[in-house]
Amino acid sequence: MKAIVKTTPTDGFEYITDYSERPVVDGEVRIAVAAASPCGTDRELVRYSATAKAFGLELPVVLGHEVAGTVIEVGPGVETLRLGDRVALESHIACRNCYHCRIGQGHNCLNMALLGLHVDGGFAERLVVTEHACYALPDNVPTETGALFESAGVAVHAMLRSQVTLAGRSVIIAGAGPIGLALVQLAHLSGARRVVAIEPNDFRRGIAESFGAVALESDQAAVEWCLNDAADRHGFDVGFDCTGAPGALDIILQSLRREATAVCIGVPRQPFALDITRYVIKHGITLKGSFGRSLWETWDVLGSLVSQGRLDLNSLVTHRMGLSKFQEALDLQGSDAGKVLLIPGID
Amino acid sequence: MKAIVKTTPTDGFEYITDYSERPVVDGEVRIAVAAASPCGTDRELVRYSATAKAFGLELPVVLGHEVAGTVIEVGPGVETLRLGDRVALESHIACRNCYHCRIGQGHNCLNMALLGLHVDGGFAERLVVTEHACYALPDNVPTETGALFESAGVAVHAMLRSQVTLAGRSVIIAGAGPIGLALVQLAHLSGARRVVAIEPNDFRRGIAESFGAVALESDQAAVEWCLNDAADRHGFDVGFDCTGAPGALDIILQSLRREATAVCIGVPRQPFALDITRYVIKHGITLKGSFGRSLWETWDVLGSLVSQGRLDLNSLVTHRMGLSKFQEALDLQGSDAGKVLLIPGID
Amino acid sequence: MKAIVKTTPTDGFEYITDYSERPVVDGEVRIAVAAASPCGTDRELVRYSATAKAFGLELPVVLGHEVAGTVIEVGPGVETLRLGDRVALESHIACRNCYHCRIGQGHNCLNMALLGLHVDGGFAERLVVTEHACYALPDNVPTETGALFESAGVAVHAMLRSQVTLAGRSVIIAGAGPIGLALVQLAHLSGARRVVAIEPNDFRRGIAESFGAVALESDQAAVEWCLNDAADRHGFDVGFDCTGAPGALDIILQSLRREATAVCIGVPRQPFALDITRYVIKHGITLKGSFGRSLWETWDVLGSLVSQGRLDLNSLVTHRMGLSKFQEALDLQGSDAGKVLLIPGID
Amino acid sequence: MKAIVKTTPTDGFEYITDYSERPVVDGEVRIAVAAASPCGTDRELVRYSATAKAFGLELPVVLGHEVAGTVIEVGPGVETLRLGDRVALESHIACRNCYHCRIGQGHNCLNMALLGLHVDGGFAERLVVTEHACYALPDNVPTETGALFESAGVAVHAMLRSQVTLAGRSVIIAGAGPIGLALVQLAHLSGARRVVAIEPNDFRRGIAESFGAVALESDQAAVEWCLNDAADRHGFDVGFDCTGAPGALDIILQSLRREATAVCIGVPRQPFALDITRYVIKHGITLKGSFGRSLWETWDVLGSLVSQGRLDLNSLVTHRMGLSKFQEALDLQGSDAGKVLLIPGID
Repeated sequence: MKAIVKTTPTDGFEYITDYSERPVVDGEVRIAVAAASPCGTDRELVRYSATAKAFGLELPVVLGHEVAGTVIEVGPGVETLRLGDRVALESHIACRNCYHCRIGQGHNCLNMALLGLHVDGGFAERLVVTEHACYALPDNVPTETGALFESAGVAVHAMLRSQVTLAGRSVIIAGAGPIGLALVQLAHLSGARRVVAIEPNDFRRGIAESFGAVALESDQAAVEWCLNDAADRHGFDVGFDCTGAPGALDIILQSLRREATAVCIGVPRQPFALDITRYVIKHGITLKGSFGRSLWETWDVLGSLVSQGRLDLNSLVTHRMGLSKFQEALDLQGSDAGKVLLIPGID
Repeated sequence: MKAIVKTTPTDGFEYITDYSERPVVDGEVRIAVAAASPCGTDRELVRYSATAKAFGLELPVVLGHEVAGTVIEVGPGVETLRLGDRVALESHIACRNCYHCRIGQGHNCLNMALLGLHVDGGFAERLVVTEHACYALPDNVPTETGALFESAGVAVHAMLRSQVTLAGRSVIIAGAGPIGLALVQLAHLSGARRVVAIEPNDFRRGIAESFGAVALESDQAAVEWCLNDAADRHGFDVGFDCTGAPGALDIILQSLRREATAVCIGVPRQPFALDITRYVIKHGITLKGSFGRSLWETWDVLGSLVSQGRLDLNSLVTHRMGLSKFQEALDLQGSDAGKVLLIPGID
Repeated sequence: MKAIVKTTPTDGFEYITDYSERPVVDGEVRIAVAAASPCGTDRELVRYSATAKAFGLELPVVLGHEVAGTVIEVGPGVETLRLGDRVALESHIACRNCYHCRIGQGHNCLNMALLGLHVDGGFAERLVVTEHACYALPDNVPTETGALFESAGVAVHAMLRSQVTLAGRSVIIAGAGPIGLALVQLAHLSGARRVVAIEPNDFRRGIAESFGAVALESDQAAVEWCLNDAADRHGFDVGFDCTGAPGALDIILQSLRREATAVCIGVPRQPFALDITRYVIKHGITLKGSFGRSLWETWDVLGSLVSQGRLDLNSLVTHRMGLSKFQEALDLQGSDAGKVLLIPGID
Repeated sequence: MKAIVKTTPTDGFEYITDYSERPVVDGEVRIAVAAASPCGTDRELVRYSATAKAFGLELPVVLGHEVAGTVIEVGPGVETLRLGDRVALESHIACRNCYHCRIGQGHNCLNMALLGLHVDGGFAERLVVTEHACYALPDNVPTETGALFESAGVAVHAMLRSQVTLAGRSVIIAGAGPIGLALVQLAHLSGARRVVAIEPNDFRRGIAESFGAVALESDQAAVEWCLNDAADRHGFDVGFDCTGAPGALDIILQSLRREATAVCIGVPRQPFALDITRYVIKHGITLKGSFGRSLWETWDVLGSLVSQGRLDLNSLVTHRMGLSKFQEALDLQGSDAGKVLLIPGID
């Protein structure tokens, strides 16, 4: 079958048209991929950057961890899926047996295998995964849309982890990439009084505005804007940093009121200085991080929002193309693009 | 001045046109009433029912506890208000010094004085209150709208007390009177996947539907509807009983999934049998109650929602009339009406 | 092997000395029972009461759901256990695949199988269970002590579900049976300012006192005692009803302050009248229930407390005997006894 | 009267024996000081360090913010105190009217006046304060002990802010000064499975051990010790940094498991680098800060613990002396001493 494969620990990838498929074994299913979407991590993996190396790739591996498709083969012992089930995939495959898995926090699994990094992923016509990596899509959600669940789930998980009821609250979001834009939508549909997105790219600011946000360029002026807009509470109530960029968290912390919450999602490349005294101790701001999605509460909330039309993931998609255009899809990252869907059937 | 006064511990009230006003003393302000709204409690007070007696009225007293107006006189020592400030009134006037007030839970004050029951209320041209009963309205909220804050605040408080993040959740609400209808709006604007309102009155069901709810008559069929609609989670996530009517809580509890939350708002007239074993123990449903509004978080959230146009309180208003029409206003309670505003200036 | 078996849907049980053992299959282990303990439910099962019928027993079945022992045979595919592991058993065997199991709340499993009711339990020399029903005991906890984990876990789960930090708080507990006594110990070791146990039996009141509680007989005087003792807060902070007896919850609710929490553990035989208006709405008391133990947070906390000697479960044990004395063990229920351990090796 | 006064914005202080007292006005009381205790902040104030300057002292001012005494004069309008009441003082005097005060979070008051920095404090024979800075001591707590409530309250507030139920949990505390030692006691009395204190000073490690902690010197070996001790959970559950020293928070973060909580109490002198990616995002550790005490929940919990003998504050006291020995008291800071009490009557 056709697949995008990382074969060697160097810059690059291979587009292989006769990649051999492995058999389905106990507890596994084979899925015909409807769509898969590249993200910033895929670009790191192709470049084989320091970030990529830190993941400990198991090569060769089919890339692709934002994936949806249809079950076309069911292995022995599978209890939760049937032929024809349409599923989105959880890219963080938990072991179900470690301390964290056993106490109901599989997103902290100590033996986590990552789809498209440690096991073959979804930039291919088909893939084989454990049934426990599959989320059955609600009836009225198109299969293709399922490929957007993994990244939108990061936004849902971050919102839930903030533990802030957003109705009537002011929300600041750094970064209007796919996760930031999903957060803009989530904050708006959750009744936020104000949603501010900080984003240098004009195109993305435009999308953020179309979702109801006030979109600002990332600089000190944004802090002033927020402090002025929420003058009665002396700052915004909650912030999400989807960038990990130097300075972004500080802009957020400056914009928040006392007892607010800041959630870090974008991964900083290195440690940076933080004014614990001012923000964490004196202002009482709680700092949380969010990584991946909770199993399966995140998916449950996300599926409900999408199936009822409260959250419109399709509006994030700006491009659709075949697997053979993978390099083009990567090049769109960070440019004037939203999500790109790779559709095996298009080639 | 003109005022609606409860003078004797019997059925009835008096419409007095030359009610004498008392002076403003330390820490108090005088307010010119822009609007006030009667509610079910006022009808009980006029009738002098058992419920009314239980409140321990201090007669004579000007009725009216849902009130907004403008500060026209400022007493000595007042620190938080100025002439011309437009305010909505908190009807539960806390002492600020008891155990609950001191730990930041003034809504549980042990020395609570109720506006329009223990101290003169707002069915009058003017009233005098402590500055600490006043909530300064956001600039873009009409003063008249402030008269709807007290009852809408009951809905906001109940939503916050549920501690359930409503985005993607299914919500069942018993009763589509003013509080129930505010909850319908709040649940919808908070991203609920589904809002079901149970209400026997056609007119009110119509309003609930216009706010995005599925409106059902109150019977066992509603339970089936909910269990079917949320079949994947085996029930709804949260329920609010705004009626206190026999059977309503049970309908809600039957409709909820395990680990759900039910909030009681409407006050039952007497104890009733509850299946603790099934709902509370085996299904793990948390039962909470909500009474009044928190000081001042409820108001803060509510003011934000109204000032940003996320919550539309004015759409709850169906009638406006002068103080002299008080009996007519009472008679509209429970009929095909929403909120009635009494406007002193209309007479 | 020797086993206590419920064979027919009538009053009674059989002590069988040559009960045949079933083979270990995929994912299962065989356990040599070190100790098992009967509880009130076992007495209901033997009598085949209405409560027993409601559980839908699958006969014949070996009774016994409070069990600990040593792994003596490991089936194929078992990942978490090895020969010689010493384990306590979770009696609520979750399916791991239903909605509640998937979102990390296996204690709400919709397909729950109960040990000793639906699958063969531990009043026997050996039993076969899925590895996922096993909790590996900490090194320094005697295997026999593990048989007390199931009931003590009910107390730990209830404490955690209350979500009340007990340090400096006043705690009232109705019922000083094994679960109530474990709660007394837990409240005391958690820094409670005061622990009151309500219990009619003199012997049990004595044990409660030895664990640091003030032990009172169950009547209105207890309410007065609590309200007086916590006069500064106007009531106790949290209550646990381990009895399910008529009136017990009401005694607790009367003793609590506003915004307190009451947790129901003992299962009432039928619905009873509750004054929602006074307690839940006006006093703002949160009502919760607790059933079983959470997987596996309860066990994790419990194991830590026992292994460090903070919680002394052995002091709850008053009798040890062989399986052949099962009837005697049952007869001790409700009399001047704590926990009874059935030790297969004693016979 | 005798008083320790900071008169000029330079290094030093004055011991004045005829300091003139101001009259009691509306809402205030005069208190005869029973005891007051210097802390690290007082040393900064005397030196007039950068930290001191940042507080914006209002000179001249009587120093001393850990104070207890007896009400000897009651001003007009005082509602909560009477002659002879014994009180401990809250050093953070909230305005009761700002946004944070109004929503029940007076510890975040935007107009906070600090006792002994902005208004005359307690290193004197008497002082005048608003009634709203006073906490009435429980009957069986000696007045002198009340002088230890302010610093012990910092520990209680931090524990409550962690939102972690400590029973069965492992707790690491950096710094065994008065606040760290109070936390050691609090963690132990709350049922912690293990309490580790990191402290370079031998004398203080000794005290920590006497309170049930494992006391370690502050280095990487402590991390290994903790990870090994809590190997089953892969780290400790909660940490408190009472030092603000460079590296201390990192030692704590390394010692914690995923989803743990770290609370910052000691104030770092400057921003420092934090590995957000590893600890906050990937390990999911929540970072919180704690400053002061909540009004008045902290005091309520603390008063209960002390009055019931669960928390022994007196054991923290190593020295008692008169006001004239203030310099000596300061010099004891950081040496082999616990809390020093200045007793006006001793001179």
